Amino acid sequence: MLLEPKKIRIGIDIMGSDNAPDALLDAVQALQLPDRVELTAVGTPDYESSSLHYVCAQEVIHMDDSPLTAVRKKKNSSLCIGLRLLKEKTIDAFISAGNTGALVSASKVILGNLPKILRPALLALMPTKKKPVAVLDVGANIEAKAAHLLQFAAMGAAYQKARGIQNPIIGLLNIGSEKIKGTSELRRAYEELQKGPFHFAGNIEGTSVFNGDVDVLIADGFTGNIFLKTAEGIASLILDRLYTHIPPLELQKLAPHLNDLHRSLHYAEYPGALLSGVRGIVIKCHGYSTPRAFANAIPGAAKLVQENFISSFGI
Amino acid sequence: MLLEPKKIRIGIDIMGSDNAPDALLDAVQALQLPDRVELTAVGTPDYESSSLHYVCAQEVIHMDDSPLTAVRKKKNSSLCIGLRLLKEKTIDAFISAGNTGALVSASKVILGNLPKILRPALLALMPTKKKPVAVLDVGANIEAKAAHLLQFAAMGAAYQKARGIQNPIIGLLNIGSEKIKGTSELRRAYEELQKGPFHFAGNIEGTSVFNGDVDVLIADGFTGNIFLKTAEGIASLILDRLYTHIPPLELQKLAPHLNDLHRSLHYAEYPGALLSGVRGIVIKCHGYSTPRAFANAIPGAAKLVQENFISSFGI
Repeated sequence: MLLEPKKIRIGIDIMGSDNAPDALLDAVQALQLPDRVELTAVGTPDYESSSLHYVCAQEVIHMDDSPLTAVRKKKNSSLCIGLRLLKEKTIDAFISAGNTGALVSASKVILGNLPKILRPALLALMPTKKKPVAVLDVGANIEAKAAHLLQFAAMGAAYQKARGIQNPIIGLLNIGSEKIKGTSELRRAYEELQKGPFHFAGNIEGTSVFNGDVDVLIADGFTGNIFLKTAEGIASLILDRLYTHIPPLELQKLAPHLNDLHRSLHYAEYPGALLSGVRGIVIKCHGYSTPRAFANAIPGAAKLVQENFISSFGI
Repeated sequence: MLLEPKKIRIGIDIMGSDNAPDALLDAVQALQLPDRVELTAVGTPDYESSSLHYVCAQEVIHMDDSPLTAVRKKKNSSLCIGLRLLKEKTIDAFISAGNTGALVSASKVILGNLPKILRPALLALMPTKKKPVAVLDVGANIEAKAAHLLQFAAMGAAYQKARGIQNPIIGLLNIGSEKIKGTSELRRAYEELQKGPFHFAGNIEGTSVFNGDVDVLIADGFTGNIFLKTAEGIASLILDRLYTHIPPLELQKLAPHLNDLHRSLHYAEYPGALLSGVRGIVIKCHGYSTPRAFANAIPGAAKLVQENFISSFGI
């Protein structure tokens, strides 16, 4: 007797982003998902849709809410309800494009951290000239001490190992390659990382990250977030210039190549940022990501569930 | 009787960068410069060239030298000699690709700050979808208090006014547009900037800087440097992908458009970063910039001299 393959249950928070909830729902419903993937949307009653499983929330955490207050006071927000569904294993992964600080705080409180992790970090996979690089933290912690940066290195290495890279190379995002560069916390992290156990390539500048010589790039959440969004901004500028500089006829012939390029570079094609270090698969999409980008995070989340990501994430 | 037009005397430091001094000299000599521009190279005696004016230095400040110690102990380095030539008005502008920290410290000591300036800042002009944006600080100060950020805003506004923008729009580089975002110093700077006298557009994320809606982008030197180098790195990645994805025949037809694009985006075409806030025109090129990029900083420096930049820079 064949066993039916296990369902992959993904929860999505349709509230609190810069997009209208119904635009997100439309984009999600336009996706071709495997039968195994089962969606649960969490939102206020006014967006309830009969075409997918819907859990009603009473309130919304907004972008300008103070994260700690919001998590304490808005226990019935879509964000908190989604995380509780994940904690209770009603869903296998949770995706939100809402308030980052609130998502991080609520995940720590509701799901709890993985053993030995002091500070969960947002991890984004970014394209390079070679293999993608895992960048963390891209926004969970505004500031980071050397001890936190070392934990980010451990989480990034574990993530890349789970992706099949035997001995991931770690780099520290800095403003020069010399070990005296940067803040005192970066210098301290440099010294500690040199002692092992990772393959540490030293300081990496923003110019050379994209050569693809490191598998994991470490930064505090402020710097990592600037890095991520700057890369996205300049990519959009270049594609815009390309479309305006190239005559329409030639552009038509180039369309397939440009589309490939667009897909491989635009952050929208990457499945959001993973909140690493908490007990559960939580994915954060940019607040301003397009509905399509938000929907595209679903297959990425399903893949992490399928690969049994959290249990392989022993650090 | 016609007066002979005044000479524009540019000093270049050929030591202390990641490039060999003779490669820099070759690139500089390959440039077509107007007759009015007169070059003075500063370097150790072994690179002395008879084809341009050469001032001998006895020592070199290296990339990994501690800036303060280097400035105190290596008074006869090419970097310090060049700045003294500028102080004595033997040259009108000085360009170096050497140790940033040493260049900034030595400029403060030898040239002195402009009135009311506590912290000089490196200013780079970067392309956007509209007009170029002046970004500062891109690396002179690792950390910045709110008071320093306000001075950067004043210097950036003065610079853009000198370039003909009547009422420059100021933005604060941050990880979200909400005023509660970022570090405490950024929040303090946000509050102060809201009070005037500038046209303040609030927090700007790396994604939207390139839309060109602000004329001046303010950041501490660490963040600004990460921003600058990330933009350069991703631009190089995209052009690389473009060249590998597009078939050779189509690429040939596209060459003029791609070259335009390359020129308008690559930081190498911009005349280095200007050390704003000191009494003299000091330009810093990346240590790793190509010899051609280094040479390209010369016309930019000549333009600033011609426009009588420092005297128009009343802030």
